[in-house]
Amino acid sequence: MDGKMEANIPSCCLKAQAFPIDPVVGANCHATVVSGWFSDTVGKSKYFNNPMWPGEAHSLKVEQILFKEKSEYQEVLVFESATFGKVLVLYGILQLTEKDECAYQEMIAHLPLCSIESPKKVLVVGGGDGGVLREVSRHSSVELIDICEIDKMVIDVGKRFFPELAVGFEDPRVHLHVGDALEFIRNTPKGKYDAIIVDSSDPVGPAQGLVERPFFEMLARALRPGGVLCNMAESMWLHTHLIEDMITTCRHIFKGSVHYAWTSVPTYPSGVIGFILCSTDGLPVNFKVPVNPIEKLEGALKHHRELRFYNSQMHRAAFALPSFVKREVNCL
Amino acid sequence: MDGKMEANIPSCCLKAQAFPIDPVVGANCHATVVSGWFSDTVGKSKYFNNPMWPGEAHSLKVEQILFKEKSEYQEVLVFESATFGKVLVLYGILQLTEKDECAYQEMIAHLPLCSIESPKKVLVVGGGDGGVLREVSRHSSVELIDICEIDKMVIDVGKRFFPELAVGFEDPRVHLHVGDALEFIRNTPKGKYDAIIVDSSDPVGPAQGLVERPFFEMLARALRPGGVLCNMAESMWLHTHLIEDMITTCRHIFKGSVHYAWTSVPTYPSGVIGFILCSTDGLPVNFKVPVNPIEKLEGALKHHRELRFYNSQMHRAAFALPSFVKREVNCL
Repeated sequence: MDGKMEANIPSCCLKAQAFPIDPVVGANCHATVVSGWFSDTVGKSKYFNNPMWPGEAHSLKVEQILFKEKSEYQEVLVFESATFGKVLVLYGILQLTEKDECAYQEMIAHLPLCSIESPKKVLVVGGGDGGVLREVSRHSSVELIDICEIDKMVIDVGKRFFPELAVGFEDPRVHLHVGDALEFIRNTPKGKYDAIIVDSSDPVGPAQGLVERPFFEMLARALRPGGVLCNMAESMWLHTHLIEDMITTCRHIFKGSVHYAWTSVPTYPSGVIGFILCSTDGLPVNFKVPVNPIEKLEGALKHHRELRFYNSQMHRAAFALPSFVKREVNCL
Repeated sequence: MDGKMEANIPSCCLKAQAFPIDPVVGANCHATVVSGWFSDTVGKSKYFNNPMWPGEAHSLKVEQILFKEKSEYQEVLVFESATFGKVLVLYGILQLTEKDECAYQEMIAHLPLCSIESPKKVLVVGGGDGGVLREVSRHSSVELIDICEIDKMVIDVGKRFFPELAVGFEDPRVHLHVGDALEFIRNTPKGKYDAIIVDSSDPVGPAQGLVERPFFEMLARALRPGGVLCNMAESMWLHTHLIEDMITTCRHIFKGSVHYAWTSVPTYPSGVIGFILCSTDGLPVNFKVPVNPIEKLEGALKHHRELRFYNSQMHRAAFALPSFVKREVNCL
C-alpha cells in the first residue's frame, strides 16, 4: 500500500450500500468514509507507508457523519454507525465505538487499579474522551486523578458526542492538564503516583513519543515504589515484535514485575488489544491476582453505570497468553 | 440489507487496490471478491435477509483465487490472502485462514478432551478440513476418531490446499463417514462416545439442522454417562440471544454441566468465537479445570506441529465471561 493507492481510490464506493446516508457534513466528505462505509485501511493509507495491519480491513456502516474537523494535532471524525453506536476516529484510526468501548476502558483502568491496595493518586495519559476517568472514579480510595491530554478537541468532542464517557470529567477528583504528556511527566515530582494509565493512540501522529524508552523512564520515576503502570500495547496477533520490544524495554526500566495482558475489542484490528503492566521496585505486585477486587469496592459496580465487561475472572484470564505469544514475546 | 443490495453492488470495487491480482480462476469471479478484496458482508448479502453481523464487514486482501466450485451443498472458495495465508470460504462465509486457524481448532478440540480422563472414542461432526482431527490425534488415549462430514468437496479441497489441516486424516484411528450428521448420529449406538465435537459452519446452508433441539438430544444419547460435547457457539458480542437459547436447550437435555467458553479468532465476525460445553449425567465434569492437561500428554505438544494457541492457562481463561455476557446469557 503505497502512494499509488491513494490515487486509485475510485469515485464509486468501498462497500455496496442500499440505504443512502443523510450526513450533516456531506457524504464521502472524509477519505475513510466512502459510500456509507468507514474503513480503517483507507484512512491508514493516507498516513502510512508501512501500515500496522496490512492486508485486512474492518469496516462499519455509517448512518450519519456527525463531526469532522482538523485539530492542531490530527483529524477528528465522529460518526453514527449502523450497529456499533457512535464512533470516534482520530488520525484515520478507529479509537472507540459505543458498543465495545466498555472492554477497553474497563480493562485498562481496573487491571492496574485492582492489582494494588487502595490506590490514591492516579495519572491518565491521553484518554481525552473521559472513558478511563469514568472507570478510575469507581475506586473510592482514589483522591486525585490527573489527566494529561494533548488535544483539547478530543475532550470537546467527547463532551458533545460521548456523554457516557465524558461523564468521567465530572468527578471533582479529576484535574485536567491540556498539554504534552512528556513535558507534564518531566515536571512531576518523583514518586507522586500510585498508578499511571497510558491510554494513547497508536504510535503515529501525536502519540509517537509515547512508545520510546525515555517516556517509560519518566513514567517509572513518577511512580512511587511498588506503583503500577498500564500501557496500551497493540495486538498479539499482529504486533508481536513491537510487544517484545516494549516488554524488553520495560524489564530494563521497571524493577518490579512486567506482564502482558489482552482482551477482546471487536472493532480494533484483529479484534484484540493488549496491555503491558509494570510495577516499580517496592512491595511486589502480582498483577494476575487482584488484591483489590472490584466486587468488594463499595458502589464500584454501579458507579455512573454498571460494569459491562470487567470482573475479577476477566482480570485473571487476561494474563493467559496463547502459546505462540508466549514464545514470540518471550513472556512465560 | 435486502434484495436491493445485490442489485446495487457496483461494478467497480469494494476496496481501493494498487496491486492487481493475477488469479487462476479470473479476477472478480466470485461475488465476495471485488477488485482484490474478499468481504464477508457482500457474500452474506447473497444469502441472508437477516445477516448475522449487520453493519460491519471484515475484508482480506486477495492475492490469488485458487479454487471456486459449487458442491452439492454450497459454494466452496479458496484464496491466497496477502497476510493471513490461504483462506477457506463456504457459503460466502469465511471458515478458516492459515494464520489464525490454530485458535479455533486447538480450542474446540482440547477444551472437551482435556476436561475428561483418557478419552477413547471421539466423534467429530463437520470439520472436513481435517484441522480438528489433527488436534484430537494429539491425545494418545484416543482409540477411535469418527468424523461425519456432509460435503466431500470440503475434504478434497482441504487435502489439496490445506495440508497442515488435512494431515489429520492420515491418523489410522480416523474413520471418515461422508454423509448427514443427523442420520449418522441417529444410527449410533447409545453411549458410544466419550466426546463429541461439533465443528459446524454457521446455522445457514447445510448446517441448519445442527442448532436445533432434536440434534442435541441425539448427541446426548450418543455420549456415554459423563461424556462431553463441545459445540461451536457463535460470538458473545453479536449473538447473545442465540447463545442464551442454546444454553437453555442444553440445560434441558444435558444433565451434567453446561458452560460457555470463548476465544479470539481475528478473522471471525467481532474477532471471537464461542463454544458450548456440556456433559451428560454421570461422573461430574468440571470443564474449567483440565484434569487431562495437554502438557502432561506424552508427545502431544509436538504432534505433527507445535501447539500454537492452546495451553492449560488458555483453557481456564476461556471460561471467564465479560459481565454483560454473564447477565445476557444467564450464565454465572
